[in-house]
Amino acid sequence: MSADDRITAQMAFLSEADRLKSVLRATTLGDGSRQENSAEHSWHVALYALVLGEHAPEGVDVSRVIRMLLLHDLVEIDAGDAPIFGTHDAAALAAREAEAATRLFGLLPGDQGTDLRALWDEFEANATPDARFAKSLDRYQAPNQNLAAGGGSWLSYNVGYDTVLSRVGSKIADGAPVLWNWLQPRVAAFFDRLH
Amino acid sequence: MSADDRITAQMAFLSEADRLKSVLRATTLGDGSRQENSAEHSWHVALYALVLGEHAPEGVDVSRVIRMLLLHDLVEIDAGDAPIFGTHDAAALAAREAEAATRLFGLLPGDQGTDLRALWDEFEANATPDARFAKSLDRYQAPNQNLAAGGGSWLSYNVGYDTVLSRVGSKIADGAPVLWNWLQPRVAAFFDRLH
Repeated sequence: MSADDRITAQMAFLSEADRLKSVLRATTLGDGSRQENSAEHSWHVALYALVLGEHAPEGVDVSRVIRMLLLHDLVEIDAGDAPIFGTHDAAALAAREAEAATRLFGLLPGDQGTDLRALWDEFEANATPDARFAKSLDRYQAPNQNLAAGGGSWLSYNVGYDTVLSRVGSKIADGAPVLWNWLQPRVAAFFDRLH
Repeated sequence: MSADDRITAQMAFLSEADRLKSVLRATTLGDGSRQENSAEHSWHVALYALVLGEHAPEGVDVSRVIRMLLLHDLVEIDAGDAPIFGTHDAAALAAREAEAATRLFGLLPGDQGTDLRALWDEFEANATPDARFAKSLDRYQAPNQNLAAGGGSWLSYNVGYDTVLSRVGSKIADGAPVLWNWLQPRVAAFFDRLH
């Protein structure tokens, strides 16, 4: 495949990626003015990785984490965003996302599609240190948006501190314990003030 | 400074960065439905770097380019977006952007603020191979959005092929000649069809 043909395939992928800007999340901007979309969220968490990388557990490759986070939500173009506090058929969602990954990464030149699909699979499997730190940052951004917005998706989904702890806190604590130590008392104080 | 104090400063920076999602650009989404914001644009060009890095001139460090592109537009939070086909007082704009960089990177712990400010300064100066490739990708994304949207900012600013060539094409050709070779005939064909 010539360089020109590779660019044609790569541009088909990058043009399709543009549609992630129209996928809306449950979280809002920090000022509460509108819902956040998954493209700007992906930028924000990649910036989180760049800035907070020094707090990653030893052995984490922050540049790989940034690449994972740039890719992590692309499957939502076909499969939609599944809010963390919503109820989902997990197996059906995983199947829709895998199908989306096959279609989207399949737009790229074969070797590159295989590499980037493997990076997304690694993120999803959440087993390597890089994936666990990336997944923790993905989980860590939303509560910070909610704190800035005065509640955000916690209020719209009517969840309490225990639910935030089990669905979000436990995941952050797993891959980025230092960041969870910083966030936990702030989340606890928010829910204390609610009562 | 303790890890906890560093995270407090880093989170002040990351919360302020959220405001980039409300800065609108002259370009639209590929489907023409609305203007693109600078946060989702930053995600998109970082993804361009990840996918198109193989076409960079020799010696370019794609991971550094991705970091530059994640940061490159943050100053627009204070200084606003300056559309490429608009008319600006270049010196006044550069002064506003430098002041914005001082305020924003100043939110970070001192050592990190200095490092990331230096990365942004390098991007702006457009003198190193990494900066020139990053700047080329920043310039390369907009015409591709315009082609997808059937004209986009070319039509809203009423510019012709020669203007696109001098303000955009020359910059892409400088830092990413292989990408300009791919794009140039497509841009030329678009303006041919307009007449």
